[in-house]
Amino acid sequence: MRSHKCGELNTQHLGQSVALCGWVHRRRDHGGVIFIDLRDRAGLVQVVFDPDAPESFSIAESVRSEYVLRIEGIVRDRPEGTHNSNMATGEIEVLGKSIEVLNESETPPFPIESEIEVNEEMRLRFRYIDLRRTEMQHKMKVRRDVTRNLRQFLDDKEFFEIETPYLTKATPEGARDYIVPSRTHPNAFFALPQSPQLYKQLLMVAGMERYYQVVRCFRDEDLRADRQPEFTQLDIETSFMNEQEIMAIMEQMIRRLFKDIIDVDLADPFPVMSYSEAMRRFGSDRPDLRIPLELVDIAEEMREVDFKVFSGPANDPHGRVVAMRLPEGGELSRKEIDDLTKFVGIYGAKGLAYIKVNDLAAGVEGLQSPIVKFAPDDVWAKVMAKVGAQNGDLIFFGADKAGVVNEAMGALRVKLGLDRGLLDGDWKPVWVIDFPMFAWDEKAQRYTAIHHPFTAPSCSIEELKADPGHALSRAYDLVLNGTEVGGGSIRINRTDMQQIVFAILGIGHDEAREKFGFLLDALKYGAPPHGGIAFGLDRLVMLMTGAHSIRDVIAFPKTQTAACPLFNAPAFVSEEQLKELGIKLRKPTGKDEKQN
Amino acid sequence: MRSHKCGELNTQHLGQSVALCGWVHRRRDHGGVIFIDLRDRAGLVQVVFDPDAPESFSIAESVRSEYVLRIEGIVRDRPEGTHNSNMATGEIEVLGKSIEVLNESETPPFPIESEIEVNEEMRLRFRYIDLRRTEMQHKMKVRRDVTRNLRQFLDDKEFFEIETPYLTKATPEGARDYIVPSRTHPNAFFALPQSPQLYKQLLMVAGMERYYQVVRCFRDEDLRADRQPEFTQLDIETSFMNEQEIMAIMEQMIRRLFKDIIDVDLADPFPVMSYSEAMRRFGSDRPDLRIPLELVDIAEEMREVDFKVFSGPANDPHGRVVAMRLPEGGELSRKEIDDLTKFVGIYGAKGLAYIKVNDLAAGVEGLQSPIVKFAPDDVWAKVMAKVGAQNGDLIFFGADKAGVVNEAMGALRVKLGLDRGLLDGDWKPVWVIDFPMFAWDEKAQRYTAIHHPFTAPSCSIEELKADPGHALSRAYDLVLNGTEVGGGSIRINRTDMQQIVFAILGIGHDEAREKFGFLLDALKYGAPPHGGIAFGLDRLVMLMTGAHSIRDVIAFPKTQTAACPLFNAPAFVSEEQLKELGIKLRKPTGKDEKQN
Repeated sequence: MRSHKCGELNTQHLGQSVALCGWVHRRRDHGGVIFIDLRDRAGLVQVVFDPDAPESFSIAESVRSEYVLRIEGIVRDRPEGTHNSNMATGEIEVLGKSIEVLNESETPPFPIESEIEVNEEMRLRFRYIDLRRTEMQHKMKVRRDVTRNLRQFLDDKEFFEIETPYLTKATPEGARDYIVPSRTHPNAFFALPQSPQLYKQLLMVAGMERYYQVVRCFRDEDLRADRQPEFTQLDIETSFMNEQEIMAIMEQMIRRLFKDIIDVDLADPFPVMSYSEAMRRFGSDRPDLRIPLELVDIAEEMREVDFKVFSGPANDPHGRVVAMRLPEGGELSRKEIDDLTKFVGIYGAKGLAYIKVNDLAAGVEGLQSPIVKFAPDDVWAKVMAKVGAQNGDLIFFGADKAGVVNEAMGALRVKLGLDRGLLDGDWKPVWVIDFPMFAWDEKAQRYTAIHHPFTAPSCSIEELKADPGHALSRAYDLVLNGTEVGGGSIRINRTDMQQIVFAILGIGHDEAREKFGFLLDALKYGAPPHGGIAFGLDRLVMLMTGAHSIRDVIAFPKTQTAACPLFNAPAFVSEEQLKELGIKLRKPTGKDEKQN
Repeated sequence: MRSHKCGELNTQHLGQSVALCGWVHRRRDHGGVIFIDLRDRAGLVQVVFDPDAPESFSIAESVRSEYVLRIEGIVRDRPEGTHNSNMATGEIEVLGKSIEVLNESETPPFPIESEIEVNEEMRLRFRYIDLRRTEMQHKMKVRRDVTRNLRQFLDDKEFFEIETPYLTKATPEGARDYIVPSRTHPNAFFALPQSPQLYKQLLMVAGMERYYQVVRCFRDEDLRADRQPEFTQLDIETSFMNEQEIMAIMEQMIRRLFKDIIDVDLADPFPVMSYSEAMRRFGSDRPDLRIPLELVDIAEEMREVDFKVFSGPANDPHGRVVAMRLPEGGELSRKEIDDLTKFVGIYGAKGLAYIKVNDLAAGVEGLQSPIVKFAPDDVWAKVMAKVGAQNGDLIFFGADKAGVVNEAMGALRVKLGLDRGLLDGDWKPVWVIDFPMFAWDEKAQRYTAIHHPFTAPSCSIEELKADPGHALSRAYDLVLNGTEVGGGSIRINRTDMQQIVFAILGIGHDEAREKFGFLLDALKYGAPPHGGIAFGLDRLVMLMTGAHSIRDVIAFPKTQTAACPLFNAPAFVSEEQLKELGIKLRKPTGKDEKQN
């Protein structure tokens, strides 16, 4: 139907007859001539119709925005002075000879322009219009390029892409499962996978050695934050490699990706940081290393002061007291500091103490804050030295249970860094390792897994049993600019170790058999040492395109209430269908179910 | 952990120190020396331990089948006369220096050998053992190679892989939907897609122009035949191409695939056959063209005969009378013919008439059959000439409603062709085109869509309205050796045409708005001419690997009752979970639901 794409025409095509298909991006009548900017996936080209060909001219006169046309014409140079350097095809135009309207269009609900102010519900409802915008076409293309680049790397390294089932059984990944009633097995349900974790481990037991899959995962979560009920993971597993080998090959893949797709040179090698260092310096296991601000522990200095807010946590083994220096923070207004106080309140902080550093040479006289009076001068001197204070700085303080301090001060650090543009470099990857195996859940009075129950500890069975709370895991997370883009670990490959971990997590023998009997069995038949990683593809593409939300890099995303305004899903189903599946509604809404 | 793979070692590595990881495939003690065949994904290699290194020797003595080992050693030539040409690594062996048991193994439930006699339930329950077999490793590798080859072709042609949602809304593809209760939208359900048909059409409206996706599809069907509740489709859609262009590029893709993966040259171009010709000559719209047998219409000859079984259908506008010549079929025994009679009975045929051609020169005297007496000699002479009978042949007859004759005689044709090895070539692709738009459902007294309701007719709106029963569609199916491997069509891209088709299918205005309002809307905003195709990936790989079932080319398939014996899915879920989803069981089975 067409000989060329609109966006690819240039001076090399001068004089050629071309057949083009595309959408009317704009139509202008000027000086008795009609200009149509015709758009296809490759871009725009200007087509000119003049009255010499009256039939085509009158059709051209009738077309409107977003009509679909097939045009035949000749590529010619644009007249002197009308070259358009904003357009890839701006040096040429097509003199239209014939024009065919392939389809008409009503006026779109919003214009097909890159910068639009339309609410997201509208954009999703008319996604087929929204996706025509250059910006969205670009994001879809980058997503395709990213996926293709990753696949090529893994294919070349002899990783086999292997598909795993979507109709499967619940595995504990920490979120709610989506479930699917079975028609053939009364009262039984499939679960949609939160990840293919156990399948990929079984593929290792099956001797597949190197596996990957670009795979959809499903989590029925509350969609605060930027999450989707279904999201895409680049899922990888390998046998006979230790964590150093896996991390090395994976960062090689990510470095190549960033170079090829957005021409960015990431650090080589990626820095590696222990969980404990990340928490200590940044209050987070997802540290944004672009931001040069750090938390500095001052519990030692505050233990003896006559200020309970500080000395309490300083003397509490579960407490933490930190200072964080904001260079030139002295310029912050009272109002700005109040807002920051509210901000840390979201994370449970009861307040936000601070000191303005007016004049270090003047000693404590040069420090401006109501809290200065609560501690002796030499304590403040030590604190100022420890944080490296300089005149004009603002020093923030956090003192509470360690969890609250880390969350609140970690978030404050990121907020200040981003809001004030204190970024030291554009792209800062870091591996975080040496995570604890377990966290103690005070409420439930039991251990929970920091990663998942299949993560191998870095200690022996005996050490694990003796002190689970201090055991570290062989997990590794890849963090980029404060976002966790990948997470993985070496897995347990021995039945006895797996059973101990289940026991520590309070999963009894019967429950373990019932839920994971197949895994415990599989580990008995020559399970090789294995480990892997999973990358969040949506999030990676979001970072690489500078998108504000993962919804912008997914062709047909769900809203924050897990609905699709385009298809109007989810929807009611018929009573007959429910009957066949052996289920019924707890509170039928009346006629709806019968109608639909 | 390892320097080389077992299966890749050869005489080029002579004298090199290597570190290998893998499974004990076999261990033999012979002449005071221990031989271990070590297996990894790449293959087998023989490792020798002699008593000179007592520590390693004693470990080697203790290992059993399927233990996982790490071995260091030196590659050396095998002694004269012990080269093994059945083994890729058969010219060398590894002299073991050290050995480490990475994991032990219990005795596997069945041996890791290519030819095994194990029931499929066992194979699926211990799939991680089953997949270790060379044959299964090969099938998984071919599947990976096929997928990769197809992706590369489409990537190079600038088709963009775009992911579409799995949590969506029911669309009418003719099978039951799997549904997923929504927690956040009371009483509403998502449906898992039977295909991404409407999403890909919307992507065309969105200007994506060339789309593909390797995508899972879900159909809750009764699993007779070789079907799976979830299966994989290579789904393709393109704008601004007509059916000839689409078929041309697709057969180019398939030809390349067969050449690259199994070194087969498929016909160029693929033959094209109309639906009516396929039904007439082969009784099927999926003709296996390897089989040289054909149905020959003889209604004209049988109209006047004094034999109701033939003359009835011959005079019925919905009837059909055919003959099919089986060369050298005269050798079939009475018992064999009885079995064939039973076979056509499955398809509704009330009997199977036949004539043995003993001696054509003898006229009707040379024809052996109880039916010969029912028609005059000249009729038989015409029939024999028409089918091209030769001495020694058997001529089968079918006479009934056309549907029954086509099904029964079409199936008989395939059975005879395969059973008797009457294959004319190994690979016979054919495009079947010019399908009817609609079939008349006698029971429901309404039209149903032969493909799906979005398929474009090859006639105008007016012609379609005037005579829907005779309208042909712009659909094309790719049939290979009697299996439909792909099916597609040009789609309707105008709202008015789509509404007429819905109306003919008995989908009223309100129902159409309710179910497909988004499509009817989308077609208003400049929907380009578009069409596409979908290939059944499982089936394609099955054909290419010569597997007997699609279950053999899926890593973790379901059984014929749609269950997974490995994970034991589907499974019961907790009462709390059902409560949260607003559903309950119609007939609770008692304690099960509470326990699980």
